Amino acid sequence: MSNHWFLYHTSEDPFAFPAGPGALKLRLFVPAGQHLSCTVVHSDRYDSPGSEQPQSMEKIGSAGAYEIHEAVIRTETGKCRYLFYVKNPAGDYTWYGERGESQNRERAGSFQYAYLHADQALELPSWTSGAIVYQIYPSSYNRGTLQGITEKIPYLQELGVNAVYMTPIFESPSEHKYNTSDYYKIDPDFGTAEDLKELVAEAHRHGIKVLLDAVFNHSGDTFFAFRDVLEHGENSRYKDWFFIHSYPVEQSPVPTYETFAKAEAQMPKLNMNHPEVADYMLAVAKHWIREAGIDGWRLDVANEVHPLFWSRFRRELKDEFPELLLIGEIMHASGPWLRGDQFDGGMNYVLRDAVLEFFAEQSTGPQRFMEQLLHIEALCNDQANSAMFQLLGSHDTQRFLTACKEGGRGWNRAGTALQRMKLAIFFQMTYIGLPMIYYGDEVGMEGATDPHCRKPMLWHRQEQNEELHNWYKELIALRKAHNVLQKGAFRPWFTDEARNVLGFVRRGDQDPIGLILNNSPNHYQLELSSFRPDPNELTDLLSGRTIRNAKRILVEIEPFGCLMLN
Amino acid sequence: MSNHWFLYHTSEDPFAFPAGPGALKLRLFVPAGQHLSCTVVHSDRYDSPGSEQPQSMEKIGSAGAYEIHEAVIRTETGKCRYLFYVKNPAGDYTWYGERGESQNRERAGSFQYAYLHADQALELPSWTSGAIVYQIYPSSYNRGTLQGITEKIPYLQELGVNAVYMTPIFESPSEHKYNTSDYYKIDPDFGTAEDLKELVAEAHRHGIKVLLDAVFNHSGDTFFAFRDVLEHGENSRYKDWFFIHSYPVEQSPVPTYETFAKAEAQMPKLNMNHPEVADYMLAVAKHWIREAGIDGWRLDVANEVHPLFWSRFRRELKDEFPELLLIGEIMHASGPWLRGDQFDGGMNYVLRDAVLEFFAEQSTGPQRFMEQLLHIEALCNDQANSAMFQLLGSHDTQRFLTACKEGGRGWNRAGTALQRMKLAIFFQMTYIGLPMIYYGDEVGMEGATDPHCRKPMLWHRQEQNEELHNWYKELIALRKAHNVLQKGAFRPWFTDEARNVLGFVRRGDQDPIGLILNNSPNHYQLELSSFRPDPNELTDLLSGRTIRNAKRILVEIEPFGCLMLN
Repeated sequence: MSNHWFLYHTSEDPFAFPAGPGALKLRLFVPAGQHLSCTVVHSDRYDSPGSEQPQSMEKIGSAGAYEIHEAVIRTETGKCRYLFYVKNPAGDYTWYGERGESQNRERAGSFQYAYLHADQALELPSWTSGAIVYQIYPSSYNRGTLQGITEKIPYLQELGVNAVYMTPIFESPSEHKYNTSDYYKIDPDFGTAEDLKELVAEAHRHGIKVLLDAVFNHSGDTFFAFRDVLEHGENSRYKDWFFIHSYPVEQSPVPTYETFAKAEAQMPKLNMNHPEVADYMLAVAKHWIREAGIDGWRLDVANEVHPLFWSRFRRELKDEFPELLLIGEIMHASGPWLRGDQFDGGMNYVLRDAVLEFFAEQSTGPQRFMEQLLHIEALCNDQANSAMFQLLGSHDTQRFLTACKEGGRGWNRAGTALQRMKLAIFFQMTYIGLPMIYYGDEVGMEGATDPHCRKPMLWHRQEQNEELHNWYKELIALRKAHNVLQKGAFRPWFTDEARNVLGFVRRGDQDPIGLILNNSPNHYQLELSSFRPDPNELTDLLSGRTIRNAKRILVEIEPFGCLMLN
Repeated sequence: MSNHWFLYHTSEDPFAFPAGPGALKLRLFVPAGQHLSCTVVHSDRYDSPGSEQPQSMEKIGSAGAYEIHEAVIRTETGKCRYLFYVKNPAGDYTWYGERGESQNRERAGSFQYAYLHADQALELPSWTSGAIVYQIYPSSYNRGTLQGITEKIPYLQELGVNAVYMTPIFESPSEHKYNTSDYYKIDPDFGTAEDLKELVAEAHRHGIKVLLDAVFNHSGDTFFAFRDVLEHGENSRYKDWFFIHSYPVEQSPVPTYETFAKAEAQMPKLNMNHPEVADYMLAVAKHWIREAGIDGWRLDVANEVHPLFWSRFRRELKDEFPELLLIGEIMHASGPWLRGDQFDGGMNYVLRDAVLEFFAEQSTGPQRFMEQLLHIEALCNDQANSAMFQLLGSHDTQRFLTACKEGGRGWNRAGTALQRMKLAIFFQMTYIGLPMIYYGDEVGMEGATDPHCRKPMLWHRQEQNEELHNWYKELIALRKAHNVLQKGAFRPWFTDEARNVLGFVRRGDQDPIGLILNNSPNHYQLELSSFRPDPNELTDLLSGRTIRNAKRILVEIEPFGCLMLN
């Protein structure tokens, strides 16, 4: 072998990360489609050369250009030295270590995971793995008040969700309330602190957790500190709480201070690395946990806030409230914020993009969709992936059903929209992470992006889509009944590009479950190699039908249908 | 183009990092040897699609399997969206963004550098860029005392170094003093706190900075807290300062507690994530800065200490002492510790390996050496690379001259050892980072690894190698006289595998300097494309000789010779 292969690994998250006590997960990228087999050779860092143990790596699948191989190695001392041995079917091979690729093992060097600190794994609140989240836009939910939301807790319980995330509820002059006037006051449009306490208490009585939205990237221009700056300019004691470019401070035509996005004058950016501002907002975050007993914070525009603030935020909050869940709003690849020092999970808009393309637009096929799933998963460690809010839509996007109606292939695209939406929900409820339902999606609400996606919830039975509503309930119940759907690992099973069908497996301590999705308007008989080639028959958990199991299995699948084989 | 290329980038250090105010450096890995040209297309994250600006990337060179391309993009807002466009000479192309490679630009997605925080660039102490460091092993330097070292400050000044790093000097029962008994007391073998103050003051009077060695990964078993644990076992109030596996605490045959390396009973590992221990060691670190005025800490076994301790350590120390230099001992790839939140630089043993192979062992050729240089540089951001202690040896390695005598090719390897050492020093003194000289190397000391590399300094003129000594002085003076040798970027110029000759360029605000190294026993005439094809003639700063400059230049080079063309 005269040329190099193009392998990639670094002994940092997400290529190396703790996977439980004394366990280190290693991820290796290799060129896809070369039929490479990979071995990791490892030992304690202080053992002499020659004591290394070889261990086969598992091929997870192709993520586009590269293919992902993984292994979990055990370490008693936490001090790991390792290198990779990669070979192809022709017998060509290379070693790959810290110094690069080489056919000479010494030349490749070794990677070193210096020390696996016992507390370094990203520990999630114990309630998280079973969470199914429901996002509420309070102005539009029920009477636009917290009391209105409280009244609907039984509705949410019946739907099956067990966590609610509400967009901001603190005093603000806008409807969306992302420009906060007073972080310590519930907006009078919504009610009082008492109402929030009652909402959380009622939710908890029904087994539902509550997360609030914290906007710390910027305040509103009506926030007391910014009003002081507007009034006193350079003499304001709060001038360093913001980024003022020049005095006098002006709001128009162009703000003379840094803002959220492009010149949003009513949203002055906060200097979160300023100790006073950091102290202020930390106190806010703690106040509402103590006062109302909330279970988590979703952090707005988390990617633009100083990371030193977040690491302090996490440390202080998790020390005092270990069961608190922290979710960052990062609308792109969120790995850098999910390495263990900032958030537990993110709002997974990147996944939504892939889901939208495949089910709603039908602009991609099964192979590209599967590759995107693996690509997205490879950007984060396992703990972060298991805490992602897996959303089909939010207050910042077009509604998913609308996207299904506008997208799709062929003459009957509007006619299959509901079926494609149902298939996407099936995917969402059988995939890793924490499914998040945007209010109203469960009853078939439609709407383009903001403000059309923020319309009042449809509460009249005759306006609600009962088929969709029941589908949500059925899938939520199945997810809750099967631990492996909540916690199991994701593995590709097959992609059938010609038929537009794919399968994947959730695999954990219990029996694995095989999922098949038919993203086409055709009825198929499929002959597949089984994901579980043992003598037991398989049951489709949706229909209750059983099928014979062996090395290969025969299944029938309806147009836009799906199977959940256990 | 039906297949993917294998590109790699992530919007994190060391692939994306601040490069001064409003500047973001991007690094892209592409397969080597494909003659790919790369463009980055970028805009503000909140600008609408279509407003992106294309910018050509610079090909830095091959680092083995991959080739490194870089660009510095300017951003007024700090919010960057970008993707790459890569094409080959045949006209095949791909887009590459956050969602992977695609010929469809939308499908590739964009990378996002969410926010370039103004204070996020790793700022180095202002004195660092010109630093030439000298490592002293105190027991063996001069009379084995701090006073002895103080007496030799004029010697160090004459040599030209302007920073001294000493291995530990705090009370400890061993000669090397890496098992500390008392972090607040100078070991009586070496003197007193007054002696240290006098040493630092005298060094400062001669323009020399002083760094001490802090051993916070483990203490000695004679440290008061561990003695308390040995005495009181489970009832010791210090038991959580260490990692005790079982009681009663025993030291032999196998320690019942965690230690440094493998069962080093006299070095119990400290629990640095315990608030009391962290407070204690932070107080130690501050004490010696305030008490003696030292200029930096070198942190022993830094890679095995909890990173949360280091981030607090850095924050608190840099806030109070912004001119303090922090160097971590990480004997392998040290990137993960040099992202801006822990250390300024590391002890570059990985570079030493490459230098050793090429000059001392002659087991690699110019191409592999150059590739290793670029590979090593690509593991870190620019600021970290400029603060690396570039060492040829230390108290933990074989001495470099000894390696040269044992290595080398052919019948005359011992005979050329000194020449090869001189060439390696030429490389060290013209390369990026901070050259670090291990005491005695400058006078030709020899010795295998510990304890042979820790022998008493040779002070008698007749034992010293004057040729080597003068060579060090000459090169140090040239480095100090030419800012571009201290601060300029490193760029490959050429490698000549057949002749065993290579060239590189240091490039900055001043005129660039071209360096040529002949790692062979042959005299050559070389015809090269000039690194600086302008009409001015070039001067060899070593010999003073001038040569005609044009698109191509003709140079003569001695066996194991070198040229420094300006």
